[in-house]
Amino acid sequence: MNARALHQDLPAAIVAAIGDVVGAAAVGLHEPRFGGNEWNYVKECIDSSFVSSVGKFVDRFEQELAAFTGATRAIAVVNGTAALHVALRLAGVEPGDEVLLPALTFVATANAVSYCAAVPHFVDSEARSFGMDAVALRAHLTASCEMRSGHCVNRATGRVIRAMVPMHVFGHPVDIEALLAVAHDFNVVLIEDAAESLGSSVGGRHTGTFGRMGTLSFNGNKTITTGGGGAILTNDAALGARLKHITTTAKLPHRWNFVHDEVAFNYRMPNLNAALGCAQLEQLPAFLADKRALYQAYQDRFAAVPGVQVVREPAGCTSNYWLQALLLDADAAPQRDAILGATNDAGFMTRPVWTLMSSLAPYSAAPRAPLPVAAMLEQRLINIPSSAGLVRSL
Amino acid sequence: MNARALHQDLPAAIVAAIGDVVGAAAVGLHEPRFGGNEWNYVKECIDSSFVSSVGKFVDRFEQELAAFTGATRAIAVVNGTAALHVALRLAGVEPGDEVLLPALTFVATANAVSYCAAVPHFVDSEARSFGMDAVALRAHLTASCEMRSGHCVNRATGRVIRAMVPMHVFGHPVDIEALLAVAHDFNVVLIEDAAESLGSSVGGRHTGTFGRMGTLSFNGNKTITTGGGGAILTNDAALGARLKHITTTAKLPHRWNFVHDEVAFNYRMPNLNAALGCAQLEQLPAFLADKRALYQAYQDRFAAVPGVQVVREPAGCTSNYWLQALLLDADAAPQRDAILGATNDAGFMTRPVWTLMSSLAPYSAAPRAPLPVAAMLEQRLINIPSSAGLVRSL
Repeated sequence: MNARALHQDLPAAIVAAIGDVVGAAAVGLHEPRFGGNEWNYVKECIDSSFVSSVGKFVDRFEQELAAFTGATRAIAVVNGTAALHVALRLAGVEPGDEVLLPALTFVATANAVSYCAAVPHFVDSEARSFGMDAVALRAHLTASCEMRSGHCVNRATGRVIRAMVPMHVFGHPVDIEALLAVAHDFNVVLIEDAAESLGSSVGGRHTGTFGRMGTLSFNGNKTITTGGGGAILTNDAALGARLKHITTTAKLPHRWNFVHDEVAFNYRMPNLNAALGCAQLEQLPAFLADKRALYQAYQDRFAAVPGVQVVREPAGCTSNYWLQALLLDADAAPQRDAILGATNDAGFMTRPVWTLMSSLAPYSAAPRAPLPVAAMLEQRLINIPSSAGLVRSL
Repeated sequence: MNARALHQDLPAAIVAAIGDVVGAAAVGLHEPRFGGNEWNYVKECIDSSFVSSVGKFVDRFEQELAAFTGATRAIAVVNGTAALHVALRLAGVEPGDEVLLPALTFVATANAVSYCAAVPHFVDSEARSFGMDAVALRAHLTASCEMRSGHCVNRATGRVIRAMVPMHVFGHPVDIEALLAVAHDFNVVLIEDAAESLGSSVGGRHTGTFGRMGTLSFNGNKTITTGGGGAILTNDAALGARLKHITTTAKLPHRWNFVHDEVAFNYRMPNLNAALGCAQLEQLPAFLADKRALYQAYQDRFAAVPGVQVVREPAGCTSNYWLQALLLDADAAPQRDAILGATNDAGFMTRPVWTLMSSLAPYSAAPRAPLPVAAMLEQRLINIPSSAGLVRSL
């Protein structure tokens, strides 16, 4: 079979391989699994009538998240976007600043920068982890920025580059140590977008705990869910207290008075959602094991499919394998949409990686580094069904 | 008994009166009641696995809210603060604009203005409804503003006054028709903050449906709760579609592509919370009847307590009686904190009205009209236990 014939059959080959792993029934991209105490805790929450801003499940969820990740403090919020917004604010991002973001990310990261009236500055990804490329970033900053009064200033725009927000794509840890070195050398605050990487670690240390702050998401499509929710991690106890204060309307404690000492946010996670989260967190180790087993099953089966690789965790890292992904060979990239069509037609929900932020209308004029790797990945990555529950059919 | 003796006994008299109405056990200010299908719907939601951004309860909750309020469209969001923020954005509030707010409101209203990088401009309340005073507002705008190119400009600051956000305090409808006339005459967009007034109406028309948009809250302390949640009402179907788009990341519908066409928000209400809301909404008529009965019981009992009046709905309006309130006579005002202490010590949770926004540190420099009525009310209003469930003990 020559290369052309092979690639003409690629969509069908991928449909067959997915079917062999997950079975013939239609499956979503990532569905939550509720097999533990979800029901008990949510019922307890409703029966107690504490479903909202006060209640024990929020405190418990925060404590258990901190224990699981090793962060000094975890603050539960309404979703991952809110977590990013507040983290940027408390990182000192001011209107008119620039924030370094991977072009290859979900739109929430760029929007959170916009909420601060700051400007995203897009940088390239590395082929290893699909996250922010530290080597390319250093070269870009060296070439296009200069230090003024201790701040990194974009020479073209005159704006201060205040922060960077690397993201752990699909749960695969980015090269965080190298990025921390760049952040240090250019005096840029590093916030880790760990929305996708609960359970992922680098050298045994949990993602989201390397930067000044890290953010998590518990949206319905994540490894664990609270319906909608997120959290901010930090190892600075004083910053943790500030984060709690600013996400809960900055109300000063008093027996009855309503005094709020700064402009703040109503970003608290309701107790109802935290109850679900506590039950999900108990099952996280099992979910992670099942997701890893699913990865292995895909890896084994796709070994027989030329033209495509199942994405594996970077060396030295543990991935949560949140979203399983296929990387098409360069000469198979033109078949991306045919593969997406065939798999979705077969009932296997698949999707491409995000459209690059730098291509979206609201960010089309934002500053950017050269983005060759991100542009390549955009054409060649496809996510395939990834639910922890799929491993049951193995 | 002379006036001095009477007022020395006022805290004890109020404790006794509250106790006669609600019983001797400790009670909160406003606790939710879960006596309907909460459990069934939440279980259905968890069993379906659709707890997050997709699911039938969000659509149903929105449809039922629209039907109940008579609005053309209701958009469920993550909380009332988010509803206000988005409503202000789509009202055209731009950075540097001013927005007219009552000084006597919850901090969320002022914060939502700040999120738009706009500036709150505080105005006075009327003694009748505790809401924005239309007569004083018209006089203030006439004296301090001028129309330039069709826009109302604050002469002192040079800023355009783009919107006004009257609020229906404790559920009692403000004089919305008079405010609409002021809004029309000065070309200011009127957004109704109906966070507290689900079930309240003016001449049979539901609060929140008079302005360009109206906002609701379903926080745990509101008449019905979704844990945390809110909604935006509008009678403009096109605006309703815009609101849905901008509260759900502005993603364009596509089988698999992720294209977002504007900077937008992740403000959607999770399906889990909407499931609770659907059950609560079914019981709303009963809650409203019980809250009205509680008001009547307080009214009857407090007739024997000189120096204080139970607040009643304005003439021509139907209030939901969300929070029951006592208005102290002028000469009893100095006893406010003694009353708060005595009632809370007795286990009856009470609170004063909010500290005026114009006194809070983040808003201490904001522009303002004279605020004599708001300042008077701040000293004389006390909220007393208001849960719909309290009527059971009558």
